[in-house]
Amino acid sequence: MGSASDRPVMEGASEILRDFGVEHEVKIYSAHRTPAALEAWVTDLRERGFAAVIAAAGGAAHLAGVVAAFTTLPVIGVPIKSRSMEGLDSLLSMVQMPSGIPVATVAIDGAKNAALLAIEMMAITDTALAAKLVAFRAAQAEKVLAANNE
Amino acid sequence: MGSASDRPVMEGASEILRDFGVEHEVKIYSAHRTPAALEAWVTDLRERGFAAVIAAAGGAAHLAGVVAAFTTLPVIGVPIKSRSMEGLDSLLSMVQMPSGIPVATVAIDGAKNAALLAIEMMAITDTALAAKLVAFRAAQAEKVLAANNE
Amino acid sequence: MGSASDRPVMEGASEILRDFGVEHEVKIYSAHRTPAALEAWVTDLRERGFAAVIAAAGGAAHLAGVVAAFTTLPVIGVPIKSRSMEGLDSLLSMVQMPSGIPVATVAIDGAKNAALLAIEMMAITDTALAAKLVAFRAAQAEKVLAANNE
Amino acid sequence: MGSASDRPVMEGASEILRDFGVEHEVKIYSAHRTPAALEAWVTDLRERGFAAVIAAAGGAAHLAGVVAAFTTLPVIGVPIKSRSMEGLDSLLSMVQMPSGIPVATVAIDGAKNAALLAIEMMAITDTALAAKLVAFRAAQAEKVLAANNE
Amino acid sequence: MGSASDRPVMEGASEILRDFGVEHEVKIYSAHRTPAALEAWVTDLRERGFAAVIAAAGGAAHLAGVVAAFTTLPVIGVPIKSRSMEGLDSLLSMVQMPSGIPVATVAIDGAKNAALLAIEMMAITDTALAAKLVAFRAAQAEKVLAANNE
Amino acid sequence: MGSASDRPVMEGASEILRDFGVEHEVKIYSAHRTPAALEAWVTDLRERGFAAVIAAAGGAAHLAGVVAAFTTLPVIGVPIKSRSMEGLDSLLSMVQMPSGIPVATVAIDGAKNAALLAIEMMAITDTALAAKLVAFRAAQAEKVLAANNE
Amino acid sequence: MGSASDRPVMEGASEILRDFGVEHEVKIYSAHRTPAALEAWVTDLRERGFAAVIAAAGGAAHLAGVVAAFTTLPVIGVPIKSRSMEGLDSLLSMVQMPSGIPVATVAIDGAKNAALLAIEMMAITDTALAAKLVAFRAAQAEKVLAANNE
Amino acid sequence: MGSASDRPVMEGASEILRDFGVEHEVKIYSAHRTPAALEAWVTDLRERGFAAVIAAAGGAAHLAGVVAAFTTLPVIGVPIKSRSMEGLDSLLSMVQMPSGIPVATVAIDGAKNAALLAIEMMAITDTALAAKLVAFRAAQAEKVLAANNE
Repeated sequence: MGSASDRPVMEGASEILRDFGVEHEVKIYSAHRTPAALEAWVTDLRERGFAAVIAAAGGAAHLAGVVAAFTTLPVIGVPIKSRSMEGLDSLLSMVQMPSGIPVATVAIDGAKNAALLAIEMMAITDTALAAKLVAFRAAQAEKVLAANNE
Repeated sequence: MGSASDRPVMEGASEILRDFGVEHEVKIYSAHRTPAALEAWVTDLRERGFAAVIAAAGGAAHLAGVVAAFTTLPVIGVPIKSRSMEGLDSLLSMVQMPSGIPVATVAIDGAKNAALLAIEMMAITDTALAAKLVAFRAAQAEKVLAANNE
Repeated sequence: MGSASDRPVMEGASEILRDFGVEHEVKIYSAHRTPAALEAWVTDLRERGFAAVIAAAGGAAHLAGVVAAFTTLPVIGVPIKSRSMEGLDSLLSMVQMPSGIPVATVAIDGAKNAALLAIEMMAITDTALAAKLVAFRAAQAEKVLAANNE
Repeated sequence: MGSASDRPVMEGASEILRDFGVEHEVKIYSAHRTPAALEAWVTDLRERGFAAVIAAAGGAAHLAGVVAAFTTLPVIGVPIKSRSMEGLDSLLSMVQMPSGIPVATVAIDGAKNAALLAIEMMAITDTALAAKLVAFRAAQAEKVLAANNE
Repeated sequence: MGSASDRPVMEGASEILRDFGVEHEVKIYSAHRTPAALEAWVTDLRERGFAAVIAAAGGAAHLAGVVAAFTTLPVIGVPIKSRSMEGLDSLLSMVQMPSGIPVATVAIDGAKNAALLAIEMMAITDTALAAKLVAFRAAQAEKVLAANNE
Repeated sequence: MGSASDRPVMEGASEILRDFGVEHEVKIYSAHRTPAALEAWVTDLRERGFAAVIAAAGGAAHLAGVVAAFTTLPVIGVPIKSRSMEGLDSLLSMVQMPSGIPVATVAIDGAKNAALLAIEMMAITDTALAAKLVAFRAAQAEKVLAANNE
Repeated sequence: MGSASDRPVMEGASEILRDFGVEHEVKIYSAHRTPAALEAWVTDLRERGFAAVIAAAGGAAHLAGVVAAFTTLPVIGVPIKSRSMEGLDSLLSMVQMPSGIPVATVAIDGAKNAALLAIEMMAITDTALAAKLVAFRAAQAEKVLAANNE
Repeated sequence: MGSASDRPVMEGASEILRDFGVEHEVKIYSAHRTPAALEAWVTDLRERGFAAVIAAAGGAAHLAGVVAAFTTLPVIGVPIKSRSMEGLDSLLSMVQMPSGIPVATVAIDGAKNAALLAIEMMAITDTALAAKLVAFRAAQAEKVLAANNE
């Protein structure tokens, strides 16, 4: 994430990853304040065995795009709603990437979906994880249907 | 894609996939006009060996979300700019998915990036494809730098 | 409705329907989390004697469109204002339906008007209901005019 | 419709109504330029046997709301895209109606869907029309599926 | 104004009018709920000696346009910010009037400026009022400049 | 107007004023490029017998506000649609004036309505002009109604 | 700044300037309420040794543009978020300046960045200030990196 | 600039700089496709004697922010209107920078103003350039005033 203030929202992603038993690293790097540290961290992610990066930022949310410039791992962007513009600035800054460098953007403040998307990517070849996704979906459906019985 | 009119834009995705030697299937199914055929096609994609789905639609662009409801494969959404609203309707309809069912949204008319994102997902475990991505990135950089010499 | 969190807003629709003595069923089904249960419930609504469906959802609000795909009964959409984008995402996701599958969209959080619209549809051939609508309108006008005397 | 300039778009509604064999009247009345003539025409529509009104207008699109003020028949609004604002002005002017007087709003320039929605309303109690809707939907699905064979 | 809920904002207009000694009438009429009473009240305003009408409404804010349809007095529109869309719906519904029937629109919740605008209109030929406007402007400037001395 | 490029749109205002026999002056002054000349021209407009000012500008459309700062005559703003943002920038720059200095804003590119609004202001005390407005409205209504006979 | 209500936000700019030891003057002048005093203050800023002007305003935020019309010093605009429109009105009013008179616009409520931008401008030729900027950037990076160790 | 396609717009900046006799370098570097080359070029700009950087980009326009991360020279951002969203995406991506790293943003496609802003920055201490700016402003005013004589 681009700032410590994004933590409360992004905690939702960590929770999902923990629930699915997916190891992950939580870092705060700013595309603008700490470009060198960010690049250093991103560059060898594939070598260190990571499958994907989740990048969360608000306002002129360049973090995901800058991360994507330094890795060919899939980069998932979470636009964070900040003090003005209802998150539209963050969303457009993330999703409107130029041809050649994609960012997989999820909903504004969509931390949980970012984690689920990362898991879906890993589950392409990891059948155990794919089975957990099916179970998660079933539990989720159950919860909606249960609300009808109240 | 949700309609034959999305074809000119989505041709960009097919091109990238062909260039990377990635087999793919191009289908037109509408979330609203052909929900049964869509569901039938989506349901066994994993069994048939597919890694991801790219869903393109304009206006109230439900296609990607509806596909995501029927599979745990990663679903990539391409919002198509239609006759009004500059593509904002398509973008918001795709990206603002509820918690639990993610759609990896790319830029408005971002067909090429959708294909590259799908390739990045497959390249998590496919090192040959990962190498091709690195080469693609290098060629792309080369082209930008060459423009400076004109 | 697409989620239990839409209930406080949608209570306004139930109230109107009760006041007009119109029988109705309140269900929570998600277009994305419970597509099968949703389809099952929608498919035989006409056979079960229903006249219309009111579908409320927020964000990428696909519920109304997905319901409309499974029935030829009129579908009324209520865009729910969610945590970001002031309800614009919900509105555009509902109203910008492709040609062939209409959704009758009312105002953001317009639950009461959704109920009144359903009643108006039934009142096309139900003169008792039409009379009640006229009375409702008169009472409503009375209330506005009374405010001038305070 | 509110202006003769809306005719090319609204021709799409007439076509659908003709195809379904639904009698209808096409009028141009402006909420602002001809309020008296509009009111006179709207007031006895129910008595004259009409089931619904389709109102199309652009910009500050008050037509549908003003029609709805004078009848308890369902009013369907078609926001017309005009020279600026991409139709957003027309859409918001139509859909954001106050509680008590609903307008069933369809997509920007969504003339065909307005006609289909009117037909769906009449088909609540007209089984022949309901059957035609089912056939229309089937033909529509067929057309999408046929596009896959090209 | 279109609803009693607009009163707190519109109190600002009454205050200005009282300060300038301009007689006025405060009424609540809804373009949709009380169209007949509204028309009746508007129609003879010029005969009753009024110079202008200030119309305030939120959402699909048709009030000003409907008033303008029934009088050739200048109509001043105050878009009221309602529960969603940050007042953009009210603003566009008021300001985007079709050619032929103008509405003089002020800022969202701009009740005071609506009153000042009405006074400016009357001051075209009323030199006493024009002098009061000059004094008001001077006092206003004084207040800003005084803030620099704190 | 703020620029010679606004002339084609603003010609519509001149036409209306000529049709109503209202003398007027057409000037191009920029709030930013010619502030001194603008101020000089505005300052004595009341003394020179003018009743109102129509100010047209696009983009960061400050012209109307700056004119309003130098006169207590009513200032009518015409937001001009420029190359980007569909005129939304011009509209918000004009209409969102701070309390104390109103600008009577009309529709984007609404030159004709600006002229009609100016005429309405003058017609508050000019009964001949008021009669012409009534005739204009009648002719306008006639034209709409005539379209129904084609 | 255009109003005393902008002070809490703009305090952030003063803080940065004090931290960098940059002398500055804080004034409240309104482009609309005190145009003469504003012009008087702006006109001799270069003669008085100032390097740049920071202008903050909300709504129809003309202040920065009006200041820019009276000086060839760089003018930095801070759009202030006001009661409606999420600051979009302020932003567009500031940034969309016509060709010939630039305003260097920063983020909505971006007072600190306005100060830093002014310092960067002065640091073009002031190496001591340039060194302070480098130190500021380093401290800022340190703070982000430190957050990773918590 | 971020892409060769920005050249036609940015030619306007070069023209102004040439007219003022300001030496400059025109480069195409993409924040995402050529991050290393971009960083290399930016890093020693101050040492090479440059006063400011003008960065133009469209869509998710990260270029200016990324440049600003690597230099303490003032960075001027030109949001380029691209194929969708009317330039709003480019504008928000540039202007909504986080606290600490400012980007001086000009209007959408505002290449000329970017050049003028750079010149204003240099003219803080360069009196010859300041004099040229005054002359430029005068010529510009002359042109506007001349339009009144046609």
